[in-house]
Amino acid sequence: MVRFLHLERNIMADIPAKTELAVTTGAIRGSTKIHVGPRKVAMREIHLEPSSGEPPVRVYDTSGPYTDPNARIDIMAGLQELRRDWIRERGDVEEVAQREVRPEDNGQLGPDRSGGVQPFPNVRKKVLRAKPGMNVSQMHYARRGIVTPEMEYVATRENLGRQMLAEYVRDGESWGAWIPDYVTPEFVRDEVARGRAIIPNNINHPESEPMAIGRNFLVKINANIGNSAVASNVAQEVDKMVWAIRWGADTIMDLSTGRNIHDTREWILRNSPVPVGTVPIYQALEKVGGIAEDLTWDIFRDTLIEQAEQGVDYFTIHAGVRLPYIPLTAKRVTGIVSRGGSIMAKWCLAHHRESFLYEKFDEITEIMKAYDIAYSLGDGLRPGSIADANDEAQFAELYTLGELTKRAWEQDVQVMIEGPGHVPMHKIKENMDKQLQACGEAPFYTLGPLTTDIAPGYDHITSGIGAAMIGWYGTAMLCYVTPKEHLGLPDRDDVKVGVVTYKLAAHAADLAKGHPAAKVRDDALSRARFEFRWRDQFNLSLDPDTAEQYHDQTLPAEGAKTAHFCSMCGPKFCSMKITQEVRDFAAKQNQGADAFIAARPVDVAQAEEGMAQMSRVYDEMGRELYLGSGGREHD
Amino acid sequence: MVRFLHLERNIMADIPAKTELAVTTGAIRGSTKIHVGPRKVAMREIHLEPSSGEPPVRVYDTSGPYTDPNARIDIMAGLQELRRDWIRERGDVEEVAQREVRPEDNGQLGPDRSGGVQPFPNVRKKVLRAKPGMNVSQMHYARRGIVTPEMEYVATRENLGRQMLAEYVRDGESWGAWIPDYVTPEFVRDEVARGRAIIPNNINHPESEPMAIGRNFLVKINANIGNSAVASNVAQEVDKMVWAIRWGADTIMDLSTGRNIHDTREWILRNSPVPVGTVPIYQALEKVGGIAEDLTWDIFRDTLIEQAEQGVDYFTIHAGVRLPYIPLTAKRVTGIVSRGGSIMAKWCLAHHRESFLYEKFDEITEIMKAYDIAYSLGDGLRPGSIADANDEAQFAELYTLGELTKRAWEQDVQVMIEGPGHVPMHKIKENMDKQLQACGEAPFYTLGPLTTDIAPGYDHITSGIGAAMIGWYGTAMLCYVTPKEHLGLPDRDDVKVGVVTYKLAAHAADLAKGHPAAKVRDDALSRARFEFRWRDQFNLSLDPDTAEQYHDQTLPAEGAKTAHFCSMCGPKFCSMKITQEVRDFAAKQNQGADAFIAARPVDVAQAEEGMAQMSRVYDEMGRELYLGSGGREHD
Repeated sequence: MVRFLHLERNIMADIPAKTELAVTTGAIRGSTKIHVGPRKVAMREIHLEPSSGEPPVRVYDTSGPYTDPNARIDIMAGLQELRRDWIRERGDVEEVAQREVRPEDNGQLGPDRSGGVQPFPNVRKKVLRAKPGMNVSQMHYARRGIVTPEMEYVATRENLGRQMLAEYVRDGESWGAWIPDYVTPEFVRDEVARGRAIIPNNINHPESEPMAIGRNFLVKINANIGNSAVASNVAQEVDKMVWAIRWGADTIMDLSTGRNIHDTREWILRNSPVPVGTVPIYQALEKVGGIAEDLTWDIFRDTLIEQAEQGVDYFTIHAGVRLPYIPLTAKRVTGIVSRGGSIMAKWCLAHHRESFLYEKFDEITEIMKAYDIAYSLGDGLRPGSIADANDEAQFAELYTLGELTKRAWEQDVQVMIEGPGHVPMHKIKENMDKQLQACGEAPFYTLGPLTTDIAPGYDHITSGIGAAMIGWYGTAMLCYVTPKEHLGLPDRDDVKVGVVTYKLAAHAADLAKGHPAAKVRDDALSRARFEFRWRDQFNLSLDPDTAEQYHDQTLPAEGAKTAHFCSMCGPKFCSMKITQEVRDFAAKQNQGADAFIAARPVDVAQAEEGMAQMSRVYDEMGRELYLGSGGREHD
Repeated sequence: MVRFLHLERNIMADIPAKTELAVTTGAIRGSTKIHVGPRKVAMREIHLEPSSGEPPVRVYDTSGPYTDPNARIDIMAGLQELRRDWIRERGDVEEVAQREVRPEDNGQLGPDRSGGVQPFPNVRKKVLRAKPGMNVSQMHYARRGIVTPEMEYVATRENLGRQMLAEYVRDGESWGAWIPDYVTPEFVRDEVARGRAIIPNNINHPESEPMAIGRNFLVKINANIGNSAVASNVAQEVDKMVWAIRWGADTIMDLSTGRNIHDTREWILRNSPVPVGTVPIYQALEKVGGIAEDLTWDIFRDTLIEQAEQGVDYFTIHAGVRLPYIPLTAKRVTGIVSRGGSIMAKWCLAHHRESFLYEKFDEITEIMKAYDIAYSLGDGLRPGSIADANDEAQFAELYTLGELTKRAWEQDVQVMIEGPGHVPMHKIKENMDKQLQACGEAPFYTLGPLTTDIAPGYDHITSGIGAAMIGWYGTAMLCYVTPKEHLGLPDRDDVKVGVVTYKLAAHAADLAKGHPAAKVRDDALSRARFEFRWRDQFNLSLDPDTAEQYHDQTLPAEGAKTAHFCSMCGPKFCSMKITQEVRDFAAKQNQGADAFIAARPVDVAQAEEGMAQMSRVYDEMGRELYLGSGGREHD
């Protein structure tokens, strides 16, 4: 039996407590949680050394109350319901008794939960559902011109708390994305109405902090967690969720298989401040003992209701895996690698029928709109290897997903589209272009893609390359890949490496797209680096703990963190120090760059006297200046 | 005093010996060293399980004799001289007494070497130099129509031992590169003659195995090693060199600073089978006590001779840092970050004179051609942050490097051009395009570039993204970045992570360019993955040790390596297993993809009977087939 213990607040980030469940709380190093604007949007402020003369840097924050020392965390009770009143005040929901949990929901034949996990102690007896005939999706409100509190929250969040900057110089290649200088609630509404962005937040997951997934917003990342039949347990998974959002995961997918799926999901949802996605067919398959061909629409439908009532924010539905496309995979090197895709392929072949997900699609949409669950239309036929990228099976499915997108939109249900997978660099842009065209600009949500297959153990990197590129081209959310991909289940360290890798890839994409606020953090960090503000450099980084730890491995002394040199060049010589001297010199000469540039091309003979004179001045100014050191880059 | 101990052969790759110097020897897991063709070109053959029915996969191998169980390794004596006879048989070299080592070569004021390192015990008394008036560069031979043994070696090496493949289907976007289906020695000669590729191999480094750096060849990677004033020692550096080439470094740069530079370099060169580059200004600076303005042409020239005689294969020369460009950096966020660049900037400002590297460039070239040392024209004004990318200072220098390239080519001296640094994704291609145009297609050799500045501790990844992209666009060699970049000195683990990251980036670039042989390894690994040949999957990967270790963390049992399931889905369900069933089913139906496709669009009513019939067949074929598991990818 797993017991959950509440940790004391203010525990340092990188000291896992020795309890059975160690969720990490306490502020991220060097920063404090703030709440901005009337909607109290959670952000993080990184404080810089007073010597910098710079204001704190505000950054996007996905970590929820866990990094707020003033928040009371009680895993047994779940998070506070931020959106409770917003949802109820719209007057279009009703309370219903929650569907009773059945043994098969947790993969058990009898009511005995032994070997399972403790049920979440604070399960709601009543859940919400749209009143008959009502539609509670954000898209529905948006299309009726309503700006919801969720949209207001998103607008403030996307601006990273900055004011409109009149002097902002746009720099980027957005490939047709239209990112505004300043995000207004009305802009958010318009993007959601068009289907170009989604705000996934089930009315039964009022704990979630609203966020948007769309090409004209910051690029988001998803982290997958979930237990499997052979490993992992619920305590680890809740811990991984809290850990993943600490480092920047914008959403979480619970991909649990095997037993205890229902209870695991309840623990995660009640404690997650970010949207949670699932693949309902996984649980449905467990309910039929793992025999794909025994799946039925009724079992699947019941699973959707079960998960909708728990509060899942988006469902991966592989409705594009149609019967006639399946044989298109027969000549592939790696066939069908999507788990959901292969389940449906097996079902279709066994019955030689069209997929029930495809046939019942409008009925599924009916369910989605009663809870505001977003579609994540699954790419069950995505390539599983470089060899299979961009083939007929993949694109046949993509065009079907485009057709389904429009059908979902007819009912004002939010949609995003899942994408590959494994794609060499020269074939990545075609994926984005085709998706935009086929799916009417619905947000794209890709897994990497991996740009080569030869580096198992490093697939966070092979895929991070593809993720940064496709994020730049317009993908709205990047599904992380951990170093364990293809090899094993990610542990806590793998989750962190995967999240940070994808966070940097998403940020590189934001920079390249020309997001108005993205460069603020790069510039602040670069200034800190140039000025030897080591602590600021650590704190501004995506992973302050690792940055400081790496620094200390070479120069552990406390003094080295304030020293004006670094380990690469030592105290005797430093390129950045010299540059500072160059700059000081130029400034003190009261002769800026202009005069130097005017001297070009240099005529040595003619300039001889002037040069000798300036040389004397330099000597006087302190040729013996101490040569500090820092930040050397290779040569 | 450091002592070097020779390790027994066949020590496993990942077990560092507990001696003062532990160079790693023994075959890379799952493969054997082979020597192909009349020039006995070293390659590696990865053996696959007999069940695969596939031949061994030949891969490029940079690891030298250290991974050859039949080679005798003696660090105290140095490697065998592979190219000794090739060099001498051309009849254009003479033996001269080696310049005597002076205390200042090792940063010592007196002859006492205490605190230093043991001198290499097998230093050559006599070294080679071109006979008066002769030019021994590969470019010189190439331009006279001579195909050297070095060019033959390169041709075989670039083909990865494959025969011409008539059925090869070209797939890639080469951005104007012209990669032949099959590399002939004549093609190598022609590329070297045009200056589009270089074969860096000093006649005093006969231990090196020839390799080419050029846009129409496989993308190469460089690893930096070297001690610094505050950390590291020669034993670690020799170990790092052997370790770096084991994992795929095509060249090594010894960036040592501080004391013992000469001796450290001698140990490295005598034991390195890959070309070694240096930045001679580093050592020259040490000789003047670290005071940049005290540098003189005579001291620099003497340093070039010293290093030329030791056998350095390419020199980074920052001759493009011209006086008038320096003030262009004054408004930068991070000024001048190149160490060599800032040394020269300081010198130029102190004397207010044009750089002596620029003024004496033709004299430097005279020296280079007498030993066949290649230029690596340094980008001393490269950007040190996202904010400074692609600015006037950077491109002003680049155009000067183009001018210098042509001056070097006038003397038939080989040239490559160093490039940035820190560049957001949307500005990367401009770097490649401008370099090709300015430098007449001389090979580009870039450091990353980093695509964001906010992830210290993960800059192997921020830069691996940029490296893969610029490699695709045409960069010939990628200088690695380790996780310690900007923070500290890389240790052995960092070197490996850096090398593997850059190897996968270079390979992703080769794939995207459409290199005819690159995809062979991806496809072999993908087939192994699909067929649950776990050992083949490990052995085909860039880092078999890590791949297997990650697998074992979840499923340690020996049986799991041959089991037809993996840890992600467990033994009950597996998407790849299902795909195999789909494929078997389709095949046994004697009804391939064509018939299925013809059935599209599906008319359910009309097809009802046929489907029911096929369903019965499937039932008969074994609906109860055991559902294995493996390779699940997220959903």
